Amino acid sequence: MATAQFGSETSGRGEFVRQPNRFTDRVTADGPRTPEAGRYRLVVSLACPWAHRALIVRKLLGLEDVISLGVVDPIRDERGWRFTLDPDNRDPILGVEYLSEVYRATDPDYQGRVTVPALIDTATGTVVTNDYPQITLDLSTEWRAFHREDAPDLYPPHLRAEIDALIDPIFHNVNNGVYKAGFASTQAAYESAYTALFTELDRLSERLADRRYLMGDHLTEVDIRLFTTLVRFDAVYHGHFKCNRTKLTEMPVLWAYARDLYQTPGIGDTVDFDHIKRHYYATHEKINPTRIVPAGPDPAGWSEPHGRA
Amino acid sequence: MATAQFGSETSGRGEFVRQPNRFTDRVTADGPRTPEAGRYRLVVSLACPWAHRALIVRKLLGLEDVISLGVVDPIRDERGWRFTLDPDNRDPILGVEYLSEVYRATDPDYQGRVTVPALIDTATGTVVTNDYPQITLDLSTEWRAFHREDAPDLYPPHLRAEIDALIDPIFHNVNNGVYKAGFASTQAAYESAYTALFTELDRLSERLADRRYLMGDHLTEVDIRLFTTLVRFDAVYHGHFKCNRTKLTEMPVLWAYARDLYQTPGIGDTVDFDHIKRHYYATHEKINPTRIVPAGPDPAGWSEPHGRA
Repeated sequence: MATAQFGSETSGRGEFVRQPNRFTDRVTADGPRTPEAGRYRLVVSLACPWAHRALIVRKLLGLEDVISLGVVDPIRDERGWRFTLDPDNRDPILGVEYLSEVYRATDPDYQGRVTVPALIDTATGTVVTNDYPQITLDLSTEWRAFHREDAPDLYPPHLRAEIDALIDPIFHNVNNGVYKAGFASTQAAYESAYTALFTELDRLSERLADRRYLMGDHLTEVDIRLFTTLVRFDAVYHGHFKCNRTKLTEMPVLWAYARDLYQTPGIGDTVDFDHIKRHYYATHEKINPTRIVPAGPDPAGWSEPHGRA
Repeated sequence: MATAQFGSETSGRGEFVRQPNRFTDRVTADGPRTPEAGRYRLVVSLACPWAHRALIVRKLLGLEDVISLGVVDPIRDERGWRFTLDPDNRDPILGVEYLSEVYRATDPDYQGRVTVPALIDTATGTVVTNDYPQITLDLSTEWRAFHREDAPDLYPPHLRAEIDALIDPIFHNVNNGVYKAGFASTQAAYESAYTALFTELDRLSERLADRRYLMGDHLTEVDIRLFTTLVRFDAVYHGHFKCNRTKLTEMPVLWAYARDLYQTPGIGDTVDFDHIKRHYYATHEKINPTRIVPAGPDPAGWSEPHGRA
């Protein structure tokens, strides 16, 4: 998850430019690294939308007993993501206090931001991958032998081309679009991101007006990707990132769609509004120097009937 | 209007404590300063809710040709409110570039914030009063000889006790309450202001559920005082000041009430959302260091039917 602000990830025009993902090894059915129960550990922040994807997919596919989970403190200090939620402030499996220790064990010269999600090989204590767009696809396609019996197919072969085509504008305009609005350091960069974001959300509202999920009757990877941004929208992006044309609750189709997903077993139970709000407001001091965390909005509406079944 | 942040107007517990008003002379029907057409000049920022009261009352009472108006730039620099909207960056009547020059001409030792509204005696070039709660009451009661024929009585004698009693909690919890939330420097001070604000707004919603105005069938001073905060709510207080339990548009009674006032001749035409947004977001750099001004929300809803007539 990115929180570099106005530093190496800002262009000359004040635009936020996300760093590339450093570690891109994969665990694949045909090796050389193959799926193995108990060997890999997924480290996430419950605040982070990129990590949240992996958390949801792991749960929907029934991989909770196969891939263990480490959860970092939502608030980072100057040394980055911390395991302060664990006894003795150490991840009980990895034995480290900071995720950065695992990054350094993997690449002693690593200079970039230390990000989640990170899939870690507990046998070597090194990062296999922090390549979040690939992690979820691999959980769906390469870990099939370990899926629960009635696991959904979130990335069905006959829909992949269309899913991939939809993933792209959602990433640029929505998932990363809110960051481009929030981390813009010029008015022009902000307004450009804001316009692209709401234009895309209006397009998605239209698409979802007559179908339950983005690909039709079945939940897929692209719904998860849209959801992790939508669920954070009113809590942090609307105010903190100035994405304030409308709240999610003011976009009727998207709001009902998001509630439908939230109420799906394996999805809503991964959402932690406390971590989300504390992370964003208390970590990005360049845009919220007081670090005060807003008391609103009331998340009770997420449990209201969605009427889309 | 206050924009001191975390300086001399912050308590040891991180609470915002508004400075007292320095100049408290009055223009009264029985003197020694008496109302006089063309002599006094009201200096306002269209962004400022305290100045906005005087702007509305002046207009409702038909005092526009009697008391002239100076409007400052919504964005202050380090020397304060500026007359950059006027030719040569000078107020055409007062001949000054900064409102602070008039303050200094009145009191060379003045050290506090220079605030609007300020009623200025153009004969001497000095401040008569910056005591905003008294200014509007005096326009209603002391300037009667100059009111237009069918001017409303905004402060009728038989209602004054009840108006005054209502003004008090609205000031502390709402008008100044949003500032206490936005300028809090501790989580506890913020949360206390947030709770008082929304508790009061809920109380006012109840009161307004079965009456058109706060005092019943007729518009009074206390409606104007509530309105100037409500009209800024979604544009600046909701996000910038973290008053985000709900938007005004999500509080049905208050939202209809505010639209009713907005659509009243002499009220809505004094509202300048551009000045409001630019002032708050570009002036308070301690809470918005990027000075980026949000593009939302869309103010079109203000013109929708209110159904309260």
